[in-house]
Amino acid sequence: MAEKITKRADDYSQWYLDIVNQAGLAENSDVRGCMVIKPHGYAIWEKMQRGLDRMFKDTGHVNAYFPLFIPKRFLEKEAEHVEGFAKECAVVTHHRLVAKPDGKGLMPDPNSKLSDEEMLIIRPTSETIIWNTYKNWIQSYRDLPLLINQWANVVRWEMRTRLFLRTTEFLWQEGHTAHATQAEAEEETHRMLEVYRTFAEEYMAMPVLTGPKTEGQKFPGAIYTLCIEAMMQDRRALQAGTSHFLGQNFAKAFEVQFQNAAGKLEYAWATSWGVSTRLVGGLIMSHSDDQGLVVPPRLAPIHVVIVPIFRKPEEKTATCEAARKLAEALRTLPPDPWYNYEPLTVKVDDRDNYQPGFKFNEWEVKGAPIRVELGPKDLEKNACVIARRDRPGKEGKQMGIPLAAAPELIAAQLKEMQQELFDRAKKRHDENSFEINSYDDFKTKIEEGGFLWAHWDGTSETEERIATETKATIRCIPSNRKKEAGACMVTGKPSEGRVVFAKAY
Amino acid sequence: MAEKITKRADDYSQWYLDIVNQAGLAENSDVRGCMVIKPHGYAIWEKMQRGLDRMFKDTGHVNAYFPLFIPKRFLEKEAEHVEGFAKECAVVTHHRLVAKPDGKGLMPDPNSKLSDEEMLIIRPTSETIIWNTYKNWIQSYRDLPLLINQWANVVRWEMRTRLFLRTTEFLWQEGHTAHATQAEAEEETHRMLEVYRTFAEEYMAMPVLTGPKTEGQKFPGAIYTLCIEAMMQDRRALQAGTSHFLGQNFAKAFEVQFQNAAGKLEYAWATSWGVSTRLVGGLIMSHSDDQGLVVPPRLAPIHVVIVPIFRKPEEKTATCEAARKLAEALRTLPPDPWYNYEPLTVKVDDRDNYQPGFKFNEWEVKGAPIRVELGPKDLEKNACVIARRDRPGKEGKQMGIPLAAAPELIAAQLKEMQQELFDRAKKRHDENSFEINSYDDFKTKIEEGGFLWAHWDGTSETEERIATETKATIRCIPSNRKKEAGACMVTGKPSEGRVVFAKAY
Repeated sequence: MAEKITKRADDYSQWYLDIVNQAGLAENSDVRGCMVIKPHGYAIWEKMQRGLDRMFKDTGHVNAYFPLFIPKRFLEKEAEHVEGFAKECAVVTHHRLVAKPDGKGLMPDPNSKLSDEEMLIIRPTSETIIWNTYKNWIQSYRDLPLLINQWANVVRWEMRTRLFLRTTEFLWQEGHTAHATQAEAEEETHRMLEVYRTFAEEYMAMPVLTGPKTEGQKFPGAIYTLCIEAMMQDRRALQAGTSHFLGQNFAKAFEVQFQNAAGKLEYAWATSWGVSTRLVGGLIMSHSDDQGLVVPPRLAPIHVVIVPIFRKPEEKTATCEAARKLAEALRTLPPDPWYNYEPLTVKVDDRDNYQPGFKFNEWEVKGAPIRVELGPKDLEKNACVIARRDRPGKEGKQMGIPLAAAPELIAAQLKEMQQELFDRAKKRHDENSFEINSYDDFKTKIEEGGFLWAHWDGTSETEERIATETKATIRCIPSNRKKEAGACMVTGKPSEGRVVFAKAY
Repeated sequence: MAEKITKRADDYSQWYLDIVNQAGLAENSDVRGCMVIKPHGYAIWEKMQRGLDRMFKDTGHVNAYFPLFIPKRFLEKEAEHVEGFAKECAVVTHHRLVAKPDGKGLMPDPNSKLSDEEMLIIRPTSETIIWNTYKNWIQSYRDLPLLINQWANVVRWEMRTRLFLRTTEFLWQEGHTAHATQAEAEEETHRMLEVYRTFAEEYMAMPVLTGPKTEGQKFPGAIYTLCIEAMMQDRRALQAGTSHFLGQNFAKAFEVQFQNAAGKLEYAWATSWGVSTRLVGGLIMSHSDDQGLVVPPRLAPIHVVIVPIFRKPEEKTATCEAARKLAEALRTLPPDPWYNYEPLTVKVDDRDNYQPGFKFNEWEVKGAPIRVELGPKDLEKNACVIARRDRPGKEGKQMGIPLAAAPELIAAQLKEMQQELFDRAKKRHDENSFEINSYDDFKTKIEEGGFLWAHWDGTSETEERIATETKATIRCIPSNRKKEAGACMVTGKPSEGRVVFAKAY
């Protein structure tokens, strides 16, 4: 029998680790800070990739692949950028191993040492290597815009790691676009943020705030950074995606100039934008409960599990036969854009060596959205029992559903569940968002978590003071804030509107 | 206008580079030995991934992801394995950069140096890190088989590189399975070879030989290696995929034991198998011609290009309208497993600033399987012109095809083209395969290329002598060879059947 999952109310961090472990999503590897993404976790990431990739292509982007290695000298070319990443770079210094002089094991071959000019780092992000390449791709305004995305692994050497949320190596996508004008590049920066918002809300059922980061929190090398920020169940914030307007910084660092329509040379304008396997962590913390993982149907690796219930061999034959028929009916429902036009994924769990109760529990822990139970008595009535993962216990059980009506009903309930998960998360988000008007109130309230909307004077100094004193950071300057003259809760200086503070992952 | 493509007959190597360059498939990066896979090349790789991934899943495999880094001490655990890869390892020795003492640029921070115990290499292949993980996943025979695949980048430091065919970093998939018995593991080794053969022949339209490698050519750490070998247009061989039976070598190196049904501890049995972006090189060299890239329809990023032809604005309106209608009709043809149930990809090339002739040439170079031309005169007859990429020039043009009949006809011709590309490659393969009975004949014949079937005495000594003297290697011991007693062409010692020699990439 599975181990017990710690209750959220008892120890939220341990609950998260229990879910990741028991649902088979990931584990720490023996390489410090690096995780193994296990099959069930990877299957969720694949679903995310599929949904995002389609949205990128629908907005005119194509995929490409650039080297894992970045010459150290490239990183040095953009001052703020290198400042931001130098402290967490994995450095490749040799390209061969040889036997140690004592013959016991291997060591880097001194004759294979890379010179200072050749020295490589593992990409923490790819602006530099990509803009060095774009130099050869962009000559004329006719070559623009260049709308490219890359799916890749990146490495940022982290001292404290947490599965999915912060790991030394992670998987992500990084878009890198080049444009002829500032206006176009800024439009792209906003367009991709909107793609991320749509994905977070419509696929992950995770409501987000959108808006720019403050100067202190922006990407190293960006003019400004837009972000989506979500609230987890413990009321802490998770930065879930970022879209950067890079101005001409990288074009200038790598000499990317093009001839405009008037024949004049100009530097190209850049954006970059990314989301990572961190989203899997956000997904877990948005919806899962004390019973296990809850996955919104649009991202579920398995949509429906059918458990035939039997004791005698003839019961097994009959219930398994009915289960397979139902599975086939579900798989052949008309293709729906909602699932990227793919058939529903249906599993018939006909394992002999496990009891139904064990199976129910296992699929609950793994977060299959719909479970169908099919026993001899149900079969007599040509019916089945349908259980929804988002409503555990008896409340979620629907008895006596006619088999003929089940496929349509299940398809409808998957959509309903998707919406209800979003609504529930939105309600939690709203109920834990507060307008705060004094720093004393702020200090009390922030201990309970949540998003605190407060006036701030716009200086890094005040932002840092608040962070030091309360551990809360400014998550974003929300794009939907009202214009509201106010006074900074700390310094009393004027403010044009509230920003959102929270403790964050 | 595009540059000229070197003719195959004039300089085959340059022809290959011209195709890769002018079709926009890849280019060398400023990182020694690493390539940039450009959007059109990456789109072909994505198609390959999609087809292979489906075949892996249909044979019961799931995807997962393991760390990029392998501790040096893991690599040291399997003697033959480390021997095979030590010479081409990228070694990570530091995890931070700091300013140089003179302030001019950065250097690895001496305080971030990894100890001998911590030192990392970039995976050249993942047997060691994966079997170190499997140790925790495999306790009982109930945990077996474990059927896992990984899509990843790997690094093997190569001195001489060639785009797609041999690069320091490349993309691939690597399957790693664990089994309770030797028989099951060997069955898996053969099953995955058959998946590769099917993919090569039915998707890539590239006929292959299958069979084991000789002892001298097997994977470091394997008991034996099976391979698929294809013949390129210059009659050289390309190893296109390998499937290894690893016995209990890695289970013993990483202490992976399980309790069998009788309660006794046993070591698990292993396989691994992989194909890489090298396949894109094989695809190019199998079918492309002096006009440009030729892509088999099942792997084509764009199946059909429709070029409306117009001079006056009203002609543009009418032809573009008809082009869009035809495109829509093609995209909504019933889904077909042949295309992984995806709609046909159709591009309407309505660019104003290029002449039709320029467009025809561009799509010919890029290898779109079908081109449709649609001018005002065609439109008067409610007809169009269809040109097939595999039959360049007038021969491939079909005039006066009724628009209403075009979608069905195009769908049929795509399948026909797929088959004809295979047949053509098979014919070339067969016509350039020879039975050779004397070493003198061999030495003459091998200069012309092709696959030479000859008797060999089974020793590494003779194999190496032939390689030194002729640059030909044994590509495989073909699984379809007849039992035929013979005498080694070099030593005269007895042989049970012929093996296949060729010069190889």
